[in-house]
Amino acid sequence: MKRLTIIVLAFVAATIPTFGQRKIVNLPDLPGYITLKCDFHMHTVFSDGNVWPTIRVDEAWRDGLDAIAITDHLEYTPHENYIPTDHNAAYKIVEKYALEKNLILIRGTEITRNMPPGHFNALFIKDASMINKNSEWDCFKEVINQGGFLLWNHPGWKAQQPDGIPRMYDIHYKLIENGWLHGIEFFNYNEYYPLVMTFCKKYNLAVIGNSDIHDIISEQYMAPEYTNRPMTLVFAKERSYDSLKEAMFAGRTLVYFRDYLAGKEEYAKPFFCQCISVVKVYHESEGNIYFDVTNRSDIPFYLENGTDPAPSFIKLEANSITRVVVNNKATSPLVYDVRNIITGEDEVLRVELNY
Amino acid sequence: MKRLTIIVLAFVAATIPTFGQRKIVNLPDLPGYITLKCDFHMHTVFSDGNVWPTIRVDEAWRDGLDAIAITDHLEYTPHENYIPTDHNAAYKIVEKYALEKNLILIRGTEITRNMPPGHFNALFIKDASMINKNSEWDCFKEVINQGGFLLWNHPGWKAQQPDGIPRMYDIHYKLIENGWLHGIEFFNYNEYYPLVMTFCKKYNLAVIGNSDIHDIISEQYMAPEYTNRPMTLVFAKERSYDSLKEAMFAGRTLVYFRDYLAGKEEYAKPFFCQCISVVKVYHESEGNIYFDVTNRSDIPFYLENGTDPAPSFIKLEANSITRVVVNNKATSPLVYDVRNIITGEDEVLRVELNY
Amino acid sequence: MKRLTIIVLAFVAATIPTFGQRKIVNLPDLPGYITLKCDFHMHTVFSDGNVWPTIRVDEAWRDGLDAIAITDHLEYTPHENYIPTDHNAAYKIVEKYALEKNLILIRGTEITRNMPPGHFNALFIKDASMINKNSEWDCFKEVINQGGFLLWNHPGWKAQQPDGIPRMYDIHYKLIENGWLHGIEFFNYNEYYPLVMTFCKKYNLAVIGNSDIHDIISEQYMAPEYTNRPMTLVFAKERSYDSLKEAMFAGRTLVYFRDYLAGKEEYAKPFFCQCISVVKVYHESEGNIYFDVTNRSDIPFYLENGTDPAPSFIKLEANSITRVVVNNKATSPLVYDVRNIITGEDEVLRVELNY
Amino acid sequence: MKRLTIIVLAFVAATIPTFGQRKIVNLPDLPGYITLKCDFHMHTVFSDGNVWPTIRVDEAWRDGLDAIAITDHLEYTPHENYIPTDHNAAYKIVEKYALEKNLILIRGTEITRNMPPGHFNALFIKDASMINKNSEWDCFKEVINQGGFLLWNHPGWKAQQPDGIPRMYDIHYKLIENGWLHGIEFFNYNEYYPLVMTFCKKYNLAVIGNSDIHDIISEQYMAPEYTNRPMTLVFAKERSYDSLKEAMFAGRTLVYFRDYLAGKEEYAKPFFCQCISVVKVYHESEGNIYFDVTNRSDIPFYLENGTDPAPSFIKLEANSITRVVVNNKATSPLVYDVRNIITGEDEVLRVELNY
Repeated sequence: MKRLTIIVLAFVAATIPTFGQRKIVNLPDLPGYITLKCDFHMHTVFSDGNVWPTIRVDEAWRDGLDAIAITDHLEYTPHENYIPTDHNAAYKIVEKYALEKNLILIRGTEITRNMPPGHFNALFIKDASMINKNSEWDCFKEVINQGGFLLWNHPGWKAQQPDGIPRMYDIHYKLIENGWLHGIEFFNYNEYYPLVMTFCKKYNLAVIGNSDIHDIISEQYMAPEYTNRPMTLVFAKERSYDSLKEAMFAGRTLVYFRDYLAGKEEYAKPFFCQCISVVKVYHESEGNIYFDVTNRSDIPFYLENGTDPAPSFIKLEANSITRVVVNNKATSPLVYDVRNIITGEDEVLRVELNY
Repeated sequence: MKRLTIIVLAFVAATIPTFGQRKIVNLPDLPGYITLKCDFHMHTVFSDGNVWPTIRVDEAWRDGLDAIAITDHLEYTPHENYIPTDHNAAYKIVEKYALEKNLILIRGTEITRNMPPGHFNALFIKDASMINKNSEWDCFKEVINQGGFLLWNHPGWKAQQPDGIPRMYDIHYKLIENGWLHGIEFFNYNEYYPLVMTFCKKYNLAVIGNSDIHDIISEQYMAPEYTNRPMTLVFAKERSYDSLKEAMFAGRTLVYFRDYLAGKEEYAKPFFCQCISVVKVYHESEGNIYFDVTNRSDIPFYLENGTDPAPSFIKLEANSITRVVVNNKATSPLVYDVRNIITGEDEVLRVELNY
Repeated sequence: MKRLTIIVLAFVAATIPTFGQRKIVNLPDLPGYITLKCDFHMHTVFSDGNVWPTIRVDEAWRDGLDAIAITDHLEYTPHENYIPTDHNAAYKIVEKYALEKNLILIRGTEITRNMPPGHFNALFIKDASMINKNSEWDCFKEVINQGGFLLWNHPGWKAQQPDGIPRMYDIHYKLIENGWLHGIEFFNYNEYYPLVMTFCKKYNLAVIGNSDIHDIISEQYMAPEYTNRPMTLVFAKERSYDSLKEAMFAGRTLVYFRDYLAGKEEYAKPFFCQCISVVKVYHESEGNIYFDVTNRSDIPFYLENGTDPAPSFIKLEANSITRVVVNNKATSPLVYDVRNIITGEDEVLRVELNY
Repeated sequence: MKRLTIIVLAFVAATIPTFGQRKIVNLPDLPGYITLKCDFHMHTVFSDGNVWPTIRVDEAWRDGLDAIAITDHLEYTPHENYIPTDHNAAYKIVEKYALEKNLILIRGTEITRNMPPGHFNALFIKDASMINKNSEWDCFKEVINQGGFLLWNHPGWKAQQPDGIPRMYDIHYKLIENGWLHGIEFFNYNEYYPLVMTFCKKYNLAVIGNSDIHDIISEQYMAPEYTNRPMTLVFAKERSYDSLKEAMFAGRTLVYFRDYLAGKEEYAKPFFCQCISVVKVYHESEGNIYFDVTNRSDIPFYLENGTDPAPSFIKLEANSITRVVVNNKATSPLVYDVRNIITGEDEVLRVELNY
């Protein structure tokens, strides 16, 4: 019998082609809710985007998203010399494909006006073409008629607000009075607008984060450490179109981008608690106490403003265990500000570590 | 009031120094057992290694190991012109430091002889210097006297077996008859020895995988995709020195390196089952059934030899969700060979996917 | 005066957005020729590709290419329900854009038939629509009438040759007799066809390597170590459309993909010599001679079959310096086969290292 | 004859072990000088470092350095319970090994005192043990007697200057008066001290950058984008010990770390000019001029404060080509500040781009 001889191991991986791989996004559910990862703003060749709609489904699948909306511009279709305008084309093309990839596909479109009122996404609609009216108010009305969710996009976009500061005009107040405005983008593309947090809290709107991608997701968000696009985390009762819609209108969201999380404290606080666990003290010696903090999420947390004798700063790396050494004169819980969980225009989340 | 203005987000991470980060190794426990990640073979400046012993603790901590043994050679101390020989030095230096880092530190040493009998690690011993005898048999006897675990290292090492094939000599049979041999290395450094699987199954020995590192772990195992050193997974009743020792003598191990897992089928089979979960069918259309397989472990699995009309090959990427499309004429379960789970000299694990 | 205080350095890079970055492909020129990096086979939404044509220009720019041809299928236009067929659309859309990015844009198209004759690219043509004839022979004739270069694509493509082996049929011989066939793809997508080397050498045709990309270049070729698409290196008298065309018809090419180079020895040999330089001996002691080999190219070279006492194997990493230690009984030059420079169906380049 | 069939290409690389690979550091020479890459500050187990001295040679070799000094502390030897003190041990151990790896090895040591005067490296010395005197002044005197170069280390180190600001005390002025102080560290470990630039310019001292590494270079400087340790670039007449020493005493240095370069303008300006080349205009249209700037160095350059209508900011990525589009009303040369070339405490290099 010929014996298998010693060999230097090659990776099996090196000789095998990869089939469809879907990333597991390590973000916890909230008690009673499932966390749906969503991007509600993206473009294709049917407006000013540069990809065929199937690419948006492939990207979302790989990124581990649960739901997407393709939102081509109604009023801006620069490829029309080559592609006849059809505002529902992208949806029709990927409707079946999204089912095969287990993605929730939301019909959407972008109403594209000068400021005021600026750009708005209509989500959960039935027919994008019907929304394409002359008057912006008629557009909004049709969105509402179709049962849609109206989202104010990138309110501080420098092309429309050169100083980068979002401003509410009469029409925005009127939308809010009517109950027609449901959310505002806090994250868009590579930007964020701190003041949106104030608007959303004051008027009880959903805080939203989207990519607004026109080109290639993997090329746009390929930063060395964190590779996630801006996304909205929606806390839904189950993983379905109807539950997602209910949660969006109820404003149960947080937004996530790079190593930042933002949103209302009522969601941010339990979310942080679900991400981390503090292992009990494993060692004591020479006046010090040693314990581990495990962060099972993809988001690192930067804890600062600790009070002496506790460490002033603790970094809880993503998907890692952090060893904390505390002087035994400190008392549990330790209290920290989380520098990268934004809960207001100028406010971050305060948390406790119990050991 | 000055408004915070729109900014292009920088990574918080870029401005904050990193403190001790410990990787979470995503490998499941077995029902009734905790999976301890261990490396039982490494060297320091106290024999022919090139690092101070604390480096071995730092490395193990970062790699997410639970237990290590530093096993400097008894008979080979090339730095002795500069460092007086002390076979217990490494242990004494890191004993306290390992406690502070929550690592289980096992006292060990390497008995270093020509073949036969070759090199052996003595683990769970009490005093390495006492083991340093002229006759190799006296060494082994002293290991047993100290209650130690005797491990035959790299039995197919080309410096001692030029054809790379492990061979058992009289002394090995004699050790086995006495019940003095407890395990053999299947993985060592960058090598593996298929025949070890036959020996371990026949004589009921523990299958072991170790790094035998002399230089720097992170530099040795920095391959582009899989960065884990060879390690032994020990299925212990709890995370303690005593439980680890009990499990080792009972032979409850698997070994893990790169994208390979190896060991006895009785552990490999439930381990695979703990790694993956098959989500129920989420879509059916045009004669096809769609379902997801989630692999929450750090090990990708390469499933091959599927029977038509099932896919002949499925790659379950690590920490990923794989979409499987099956013709509805196929019947659950699908049966596959896992190319990278080795359960014998020339044998891999056979598994079922139920959907 | 306030003193700038000590700070932990952050990367400037982390706070600055990136503008257009173009990779320098480290591949040498040949004496008397400039090496132009080219991809002559790619698709867009105007046939069965999934991107707008500008994406192909952006990708080529970033990849450091000098010239591209977009070659949408004439006979296969699956998006025609949404996009009216226009075989010259992609060219017209990027003609100006390519100028702005300093890319040589070659008008092309793909003639798409069953085997025989299979698929052919027409390059350096004037009007793609005119080539769209019923009879394939009329297509070929029109390519020639327009002064075009006729390229046989992926002759061993399994969809057309299930055993993967390229075969020449009557029509191929007839093309060669007429002088109408100018090149064959050796690399296509992720494949290669060893037998193409035999055809090209026998019939004096250009050896060509192309991506045939339908989706996203950066996603298709993101392997951990080598990230280059398949490309054709054309040895032109200058960097211009006319010089490129002249060199293509003259067959002055090599093809490059991953860590492989292939082509005729007359180009491969001087190319290798331009890549590496052997530094003179820097140290001698105890019977050994030490010298450095510098490889300033992006291609690693694997030298094997060295004769004792020279090392049997030397790996010259890309963009690296390799230290070679040779017994002083060896004599310069050392002779090696370069495992990854393919010069025939079953033949690699033989080279000499002088020291 | 059996035909080689079509295959999906695996990387040759995946099956071949790597031998010693030495990185090419892409940094240009200056006219008349060779740029030697040096690190003059590192530790081993013979003081408070954690590696055997050969590791320092291996690291330097891989990093593409030309010269190193191992500088174990004279007065701080915490491993002395296990390793008898020998201040020349590290040098003796690697003297031959450095020759085999073509590294210039400089004998050095670190004089380790409280502030003032702080820590000093003695370089180019003959015997470290002789320098170990009670009085620090006697230490300095012996360094000078041995023909050594005296370097003031990390003058703003927070352990000795809590506000991080370097201060000159009487003893430093006295050293300068005597002509005994030859350089000061601007970069040390992960820190930099802006004020050092003022001291070096005023007293005509060499600006120095070193790692002061105690653990593992590859682990310390593994930041995602820039992986170089702090190093001193010395502009020497040739690559030899004597030339290096002459250049050091003459103060012909720049320092390099991450994406920063620092030093006197007389060296920084020509160095920048050697790094970049501006290709002539390749396209003009619609009021714009297009040209390329090629940066063949490993250092990206961040050009800011451009004057309208030129771009206000240009990022010249490392080893890349940057496309610049300028309004044709701008006039050549464009003038910029290079944000990451530090030429004074609060001053960066001003450069011109000619096109």
